[in-house]
Amino acid sequence: MSAKIRLYVDHPLGAGQTVPLERAQAHYLFGVMRQTVGGQVALFNGRDGEWLAEVTRAGKRDGELSCLEQTRPLRMPPDLWLCFAPIKKARTDFIVEKATEMGAARIVPVMTEFTNAGRVQTDRLQAHAVEAAEQCGGTYVPEVAEPVRLDRLLDGWDGARHLMFCDEALAAEGGGAGLETRGPWAILIGPEGGFSEKERARLGRLEAAVAVRLGPRILRADTAAVAALTLWQLALGDWG
Amino acid sequence: MSAKIRLYVDHPLGAGQTVPLERAQAHYLFGVMRQTVGGQVALFNGRDGEWLAEVTRAGKRDGELSCLEQTRPLRMPPDLWLCFAPIKKARTDFIVEKATEMGAARIVPVMTEFTNAGRVQTDRLQAHAVEAAEQCGGTYVPEVAEPVRLDRLLDGWDGARHLMFCDEALAAEGGGAGLETRGPWAILIGPEGGFSEKERARLGRLEAAVAVRLGPRILRADTAAVAALTLWQLALGDWG
Repeated sequence: MSAKIRLYVDHPLGAGQTVPLERAQAHYLFGVMRQTVGGQVALFNGRDGEWLAEVTRAGKRDGELSCLEQTRPLRMPPDLWLCFAPIKKARTDFIVEKATEMGAARIVPVMTEFTNAGRVQTDRLQAHAVEAAEQCGGTYVPEVAEPVRLDRLLDGWDGARHLMFCDEALAAEGGGAGLETRGPWAILIGPEGGFSEKERARLGRLEAAVAVRLGPRILRADTAAVAALTLWQLALGDWG
Repeated sequence: MSAKIRLYVDHPLGAGQTVPLERAQAHYLFGVMRQTVGGQVALFNGRDGEWLAEVTRAGKRDGELSCLEQTRPLRMPPDLWLCFAPIKKARTDFIVEKATEMGAARIVPVMTEFTNAGRVQTDRLQAHAVEAAEQCGGTYVPEVAEPVRLDRLLDGWDGARHLMFCDEALAAEGGGAGLETRGPWAILIGPEGGFSEKERARLGRLEAAVAVRLGPRILRADTAAVAALTLWQLALGDWG
């Protein structure tokens, strides 16, 4: 059986385990969703799978749940990072939401030369990833990393992690050509103005990098993120 | 050479052709974008490709452009419809924008049993499609059709048009299995609550229909639209 409400908690889950609720979660569960003692909720913490739990105490500022049974095992996404140049607030939120639904393991805001975005609030983006995981039925929440400059990211790049980036001029063929090697990967989505010449040259020299082309029209960054994640998941991920 | 501003007009385009501007376009071009006589703009009308044009008259309420040379031929998208159950306003707008960028030829809002949306403003959605075409470099604007009930849509379904819909239970295999036949196609994206049993049975019986699975997580309708369009464009469309 499965509960309608799914809640991410940062607490161990297991048979008979008691789970205390934080203030915001108690407000959501009892104030907004009108749950009372005996109500059933699905819990996940990104480590122990999904558990059916029962409300055992419902307060205004806190509460407690008790785990009944595991309803889903932990399902890790593939070892795929989504690196993206932040854009306007709403579309950046969308990219984090979509990366979570589409099964990225880690989300990395990357500052490129043409990135035109204000301060990136990592904790707000992390909250979006949690919400998206609650909603999409996932048992894992991707970590939203602190923003990093593209040149620094590439300076420290692990050569074992392949990098797929979108560049019409550098892509040899259309579609998923070049996506053959299994193992850790990252997708890099550039800003609205594209990559600078210097950045493109650097990416072109990176041995682990593969340029792909996402069709004949120009895609907005949030569209490109979903399209690139689809391309990758079909070729190498868990969609097969 | 190519102009930075792209404008959709409903007027024939050709060498030496004069193009009058409507009030809203004159306001945008001269008021917002600060163009003056001699300024260059790219025009397209969905029929004659893209033309470089020069401002010959710039008024407060109207204006005129003169076509100089064709900068791109007309590029039609594949004969692909995106049929989708409208959702919340902002996400419905996003679906129309993304369908245009991703290369759908026609966009059809479909009312299913579990569709939970207010009135669909077709002309507002059409304006979003125009804006997305201006922005993505396309020379074609998909038509946004009037909303139609799913049962009526299927009653009048042209058997020559294949239909791809997303259903985990009915999909035989993951990925793009079943997307082999070329010709006219449509993609159908269900509402948040999914299709009803009756609708699923009817879709399952439709000879031209193929069920696909979009990965192991539940996607929001706007994410599913982009993922499904990617899947189709890779298998049968203009992304190869």
